[in-house]
Amino acid sequence: MRALVWSGREARVVDRDPPQGNAGTAIVRVARAGICNTDLELVKGYMGFHGVLGHEFVGVVDQGPAQWQGQRVVGEINFACGACATCQGGLPRHCPTRRVMGILAADGAFAELVAVPIANLHRVPDSVSDDEAVFTEPLAAAFAIQEQVNVRPDTDCVVLGDGKLGLLVAQVLHQAGARVLAVGKHPEKQAILRRRGIETTTLATWQGAPADLVIEATGSAAGFRAAVAATKPRGTLVLKSTLAEAPEINLAPVVINEISVIGSRCGPFEPALRALETHSVDVRSLIAARRPLREAVDALQLAAAPGTLKVLLEP
Amino acid sequence: MRALVWSGREARVVDRDPPQGNAGTAIVRVARAGICNTDLELVKGYMGFHGVLGHEFVGVVDQGPAQWQGQRVVGEINFACGACATCQGGLPRHCPTRRVMGILAADGAFAELVAVPIANLHRVPDSVSDDEAVFTEPLAAAFAIQEQVNVRPDTDCVVLGDGKLGLLVAQVLHQAGARVLAVGKHPEKQAILRRRGIETTTLATWQGAPADLVIEATGSAAGFRAAVAATKPRGTLVLKSTLAEAPEINLAPVVINEISVIGSRCGPFEPALRALETHSVDVRSLIAARRPLREAVDALQLAAAPGTLKVLLEP
Repeated sequence: MRALVWSGREARVVDRDPPQGNAGTAIVRVARAGICNTDLELVKGYMGFHGVLGHEFVGVVDQGPAQWQGQRVVGEINFACGACATCQGGLPRHCPTRRVMGILAADGAFAELVAVPIANLHRVPDSVSDDEAVFTEPLAAAFAIQEQVNVRPDTDCVVLGDGKLGLLVAQVLHQAGARVLAVGKHPEKQAILRRRGIETTTLATWQGAPADLVIEATGSAAGFRAAVAATKPRGTLVLKSTLAEAPEINLAPVVINEISVIGSRCGPFEPALRALETHSVDVRSLIAARRPLREAVDALQLAAAPGTLKVLLEP
Repeated sequence: MRALVWSGREARVVDRDPPQGNAGTAIVRVARAGICNTDLELVKGYMGFHGVLGHEFVGVVDQGPAQWQGQRVVGEINFACGACATCQGGLPRHCPTRRVMGILAADGAFAELVAVPIANLHRVPDSVSDDEAVFTEPLAAAFAIQEQVNVRPDTDCVVLGDGKLGLLVAQVLHQAGARVLAVGKHPEKQAILRRRGIETTTLATWQGAPADLVIEATGSAAGFRAAVAATKPRGTLVLKSTLAEAPEINLAPVVINEISVIGSRCGPFEPALRALETHSVDVRSLIAARRPLREAVDALQLAAAPGTLKVLLEP
């Protein structure tokens, strides 16, 4: 089958053996896959991964148990053991022996076929198109914030960054009832939020008062510093970006202002699928381009260009 | 009067005019003052402070309203306006226009006399000696953790660092009912904790499982990295150290393990005074040396020597 493989030194579209299923695993034929900033960090060396990239996908079960055969599905990306204390404690996404699709010791979805544990599959409602369903994983990551922080109707919230994840986070917090101000660089992207009634401003003109809750979704060290400054004393700063490099960061303002800095990674699929079904979050406007899988290397480059929103790969 | 002044370039004991009182302020004659790691960071440039150092003290009101005259007192170090939204919102320690004794735009207690707002004074119970009362401020800083984190009887807690603050924090969390493991470098300091029934281990021999709650009290960038590694997924890491330099810190593990990193600075004086009154925390064993104020420069050097616990200044 065709797949985009990161060797640790270069990304190449190759022909390789298809994944093999087993009792607990389904083989899914990928219909759409999305390029995430994490993929762009992986090809800078993040996690030391090599193998087939890609963890945002929607597809149809090609091989698996009868009740899943032919079903249109999305899949959670953390492959947990299900038996350890962390899994039994309700945090399978943090299983210490987990593999992570396209990120850690498991091949990903920038391929014709991908192996996914049955336990990780979610059926996609008929009313949700492939173009929408491919956003389930990043949208779930936005919903993780509400698992970690008590978002209240009177929570003043600043979302820093108008990239793919920032646009999803701002919408999710807005529909949760928080007072959201989205701060970014690109008025044309922020128009997506304004159409949803979300207040926006540009970094250049922002004269912001510090907020109760700040979401860092810029993916830069400068963004982290701005986010700390934007957080009220005893407020909460949620970090949604993972970076390959270690920026020089002064933690003194975190201590002085007694800020809670909360790392946030993957989230729950159920509310993401419900939001897609009810169209309470606009994901279609985030699609910047589509490329066939055979052009995946160019697609990665396109996704890495500043300002590009979601690039989708199709079979 | 005699005072230890940091000019921004050097620390010197000088003779200077005594502080002037006003309607809202008491002048306190200092009986004991304690040297804190923050003082050592200030003379490396932290906060860009210059003036009289010192913020841990006990003394007797020399000038002030009749009901305070002659009272033995300790004083909270954040001088707040009392009127702004932050103060009215219950966070006067975070008042944006605050001055901070011996740290920010207010002279400190390494002097014969120090000015303290009346609102910041607390009477010292007769049963608490000067040697104990001088620990009120750092002990309050240890109690701040319980303002910020829900410490439960089943909370597994690791305290990293067996310096002055680490020893106080371990005792406070232990008496709050948490299962505390204190990790440090100095078996002779850890003996103070073991006498209180607190489990201890050295960094070199520690094979620790990650904990629900980790307190970083080492004051080093290496300590921060060890603390992140010691925190369970979705666990809480409290930072009690302020550092003048900005270490290079990789936040990726914070995001991946979805850790809450909580900065923690000053705390409530009331529970600290109660703990001193009931001797539920041993502070006397932390006294390493006493020096007269005129030898304050040497005392600072002594306090900066690795492994030194609390150095007290006396008139």
